[in-house]
Amino acid sequence: MDAKARPPTEAQSRPRRRGRGGRAARHETEAKATIAQAPVILRRTPLWDVMSSEACEIAERNADLLLQENGIVMNDPDCQALWKEAGADLSGELIRIPKGLARDLCQSAPSQFIQHARNPERSVPLGGDHMVLAPVYGPPFVHDEEKGRRYGQIADFENLAKLTYMLPYFHHAGGTLCEPVDLPVNKRHLDMVRSHIVLSDKAFMGSVTSQQRAEDSIEMARIVFGTDFVDQNACLLSLININSPLVLDATMAGAMKVYARANQATIVSPFIMAGATGPVGPLGVVTQALAEGMAAVATVQLLRKGAPVIFGTFISTLAMKTGAPAFGGPESALMTLAMAKLARRLKVPYRAGGAYTSAKTLDAQAAAESQNSAIMTFGAGVNFVLHAGGWLDGGLCSSYEKLVFDHDQLGKMTRLAEGLSADTNSQAMDAFEEVPPGHHFLGSEHTKRNYASIFYTPTFGDTSPYDQWRLEGETRATAKATKVWKSLLASYEPPPLDEGIREHLDAFIAQRKAAEPDALV
Amino acid sequence: MDAKARPPTEAQSRPRRRGRGGRAARHETEAKATIAQAPVILRRTPLWDVMSSEACEIAERNADLLLQENGIVMNDPDCQALWKEAGADLSGELIRIPKGLARDLCQSAPSQFIQHARNPERSVPLGGDHMVLAPVYGPPFVHDEEKGRRYGQIADFENLAKLTYMLPYFHHAGGTLCEPVDLPVNKRHLDMVRSHIVLSDKAFMGSVTSQQRAEDSIEMARIVFGTDFVDQNACLLSLININSPLVLDATMAGAMKVYARANQATIVSPFIMAGATGPVGPLGVVTQALAEGMAAVATVQLLRKGAPVIFGTFISTLAMKTGAPAFGGPESALMTLAMAKLARRLKVPYRAGGAYTSAKTLDAQAAAESQNSAIMTFGAGVNFVLHAGGWLDGGLCSSYEKLVFDHDQLGKMTRLAEGLSADTNSQAMDAFEEVPPGHHFLGSEHTKRNYASIFYTPTFGDTSPYDQWRLEGETRATAKATKVWKSLLASYEPPPLDEGIREHLDAFIAQRKAAEPDALV
Repeated sequence: MDAKARPPTEAQSRPRRRGRGGRAARHETEAKATIAQAPVILRRTPLWDVMSSEACEIAERNADLLLQENGIVMNDPDCQALWKEAGADLSGELIRIPKGLARDLCQSAPSQFIQHARNPERSVPLGGDHMVLAPVYGPPFVHDEEKGRRYGQIADFENLAKLTYMLPYFHHAGGTLCEPVDLPVNKRHLDMVRSHIVLSDKAFMGSVTSQQRAEDSIEMARIVFGTDFVDQNACLLSLININSPLVLDATMAGAMKVYARANQATIVSPFIMAGATGPVGPLGVVTQALAEGMAAVATVQLLRKGAPVIFGTFISTLAMKTGAPAFGGPESALMTLAMAKLARRLKVPYRAGGAYTSAKTLDAQAAAESQNSAIMTFGAGVNFVLHAGGWLDGGLCSSYEKLVFDHDQLGKMTRLAEGLSADTNSQAMDAFEEVPPGHHFLGSEHTKRNYASIFYTPTFGDTSPYDQWRLEGETRATAKATKVWKSLLASYEPPPLDEGIREHLDAFIAQRKAAEPDALV
Repeated sequence: MDAKARPPTEAQSRPRRRGRGGRAARHETEAKATIAQAPVILRRTPLWDVMSSEACEIAERNADLLLQENGIVMNDPDCQALWKEAGADLSGELIRIPKGLARDLCQSAPSQFIQHARNPERSVPLGGDHMVLAPVYGPPFVHDEEKGRRYGQIADFENLAKLTYMLPYFHHAGGTLCEPVDLPVNKRHLDMVRSHIVLSDKAFMGSVTSQQRAEDSIEMARIVFGTDFVDQNACLLSLININSPLVLDATMAGAMKVYARANQATIVSPFIMAGATGPVGPLGVVTQALAEGMAAVATVQLLRKGAPVIFGTFISTLAMKTGAPAFGGPESALMTLAMAKLARRLKVPYRAGGAYTSAKTLDAQAAAESQNSAIMTFGAGVNFVLHAGGWLDGGLCSSYEKLVFDHDQLGKMTRLAEGLSADTNSQAMDAFEEVPPGHHFLGSEHTKRNYASIFYTPTFGDTSPYDQWRLEGETRATAKATKVWKSLLASYEPPPLDEGIREHLDAFIAQRKAAEPDALV
């Protein structure tokens, strides 16, 4: 392996965000244009705590009861064997876990870890008071205002990867930005992982759709980071969905095994549509998510003690009259805030939230639903926010416009997370000494000293007078978003990548593609 | 006065919302269609507390310092005389208030009071854990998607009054829904107050643009509620803006005097554009708002000890490059949350927030900015939320579409404010007894028992599949909003009003209009 490809040292890649204010970072962002990145959020704003300790204890007691009485199905012999050995009661694929056991096993999971990026400056701390933002994951469709909705292709994937790389408040490249359906199902993971590596230098996610594809993802990480480094550090983060209620299916268990055994990070994530894959009672939903999440985190720990793992949740309600998932509602918000507290009590990093909507385009519905979700994500202090931008149509669609629009909201939320400073500058008593009653502060020294950075400057915050707005074409936010993503793509330049790594990657991909025929599953 | 016009007794009009869950109210809403009203919110969700006690103490200390050192200008001889008598140091119109005096005087303000509506069922409690929602106030322009933007007329005012009456999550009719510029400035208040009385039965606001107009508003309230009742109860709530920084101008002081002396409620409201009428330092803004608000609440108490008064704040930041107000930003959100805590420490009801935006139409920008503001309003537990719906273009414009769109968000926020229940039904353990791992909850008894009311059903929450949405015309939220307000107006029916009261009102208005020539100020 080429010397230049040597992985970052621990010192290089440790989070250097502590002590670096968001304000300083913003100056940096302005100076270096779009490629300068915002540091991972170190949340200073207190959490929005909507759940009493008593309610937490009820949910924890009931979750233990669920695991002991209902049990959880795991369609995987290895997982079954590990649980049997750990003291669970097996009945076929059903695992009944004695009260307290799952929680005990979770204790060996790290409360915080680093996922490494090939650019050590982009490595991200996951856990604690950090918040890492990543784009939408998984949609089969893509949408933009000019071409409308269509199935995603690898060209779209690449575009979304480029945009995510360029947009500074995405700290993480994400994973399946859209399904590239123009590529064979059994090979497209190779192209997706390659795109993340080549087009971006942010941390990214691995494939989970089969054990082989998970292994391929790890092999590609080894090419980039070096085998020894990957053995000892989380270079991939991969999404393991629980097939709620209370089922870990064979595919997800298979991928989980590969990653956990390789010491790579996973997000284990109950997928609850309240009313369908969970009950409608809100505390019941949270209880189920806790039970499923604890069982999955514990399984990872049984597979490899100390393996990095994030407690995920994906919670939505149903529009009860039609049975369709309904995003951005108040009940999901409350459950997200509540679940965050339960994850903190478990002392594991937490994934939830994002900019969810059921809307089919970036309209007022999309924006309102997405902000309803996103603000709660920040109120909950979520450590890893998947779907933080670009999500449309209940997650069926990746939207070019919404990716850049949501990103702007993330900028605002980043400022919100910085909290209300009480320092001397924030107190502004010097301004009051300067400005008497009835006068204005526009030209004051205090204002001059602060004006460049004190307030977030939104991309989609038109403040022009009505007449000017009208003369300039009455541009609504969605139309502006089209201009923004096009302009970004036009100015994209790839981050540097060692040529030896690229050749090695491409050789590996070619070999893997030749090894089996194209397949539709 | 006709017997039927007798004002509600205290027993009839006391808030009967305690113990009436929002859920029960929703059932009612469905049963009686649009005219059934949601009860005033009794917030159960804990507050989002972003400000430390230490920061509160700094702001309180600095606010006292501001009032003592900088002082506050009041362009009103009565107010000056009262402050002199109370121990303040006068220098022309500048009043310097010794540390602690303003806060001490605030102690006689009620921590909660009722504003009466002519329908006792619509009387609203202001203070404590209650949240009362009212529409936009003050815009000279109106906008709808068909006619575009134009100056407001009395016909628009009437339409907005009808819509606010019909929309259940507005608990309050508001005041100047738009400026009816087709009427003379010195007489339009008569038509506005009449519209509120005749077209709605919710509580409403009085005129503040001159002492005479305030007196007219009170006289009209007397016709509706009876003179004795008005003497003893708050039947009007009126908005007194502070001319920030630190000026109470003659017009506002004049109206404030009329209302306070008549025992009618006022909202005293610093109007701070951080960077122009206040400093840019966030704690400084909050400090200034506290100083101005305390001085104004204290002035009301000097005018009439125990008079009902709400501590208001209107805080926005500036787009520093252009100097234009920028709504829906994260800094305003933090300041709203912080200011709420300071108002609670002062033990007076608090007004803030709303659905603010700088956008010129109901687009994604408008929706995102408005939700950024509105969610904070709920996180802050604001007692009286003016501008909760219909606000557009930095408050220059009342939007028909946005009124109904924002109202739907208020429905969501109402559910959010109900909090996460931990009762047996919410725990849903019966559902888990019924549904084994891998099965679904759609047909479970638990779901059947709850499906009709457990989740909020949004008006602007399209969850249909993409193909259906496309076949049905690709309706975006804004276009749907046009349909909604038109359909509401088409089905409007006025609430019953005693004919004697109506005649009495009209005679009073005719007499007042005849008493002076039309004027442009």
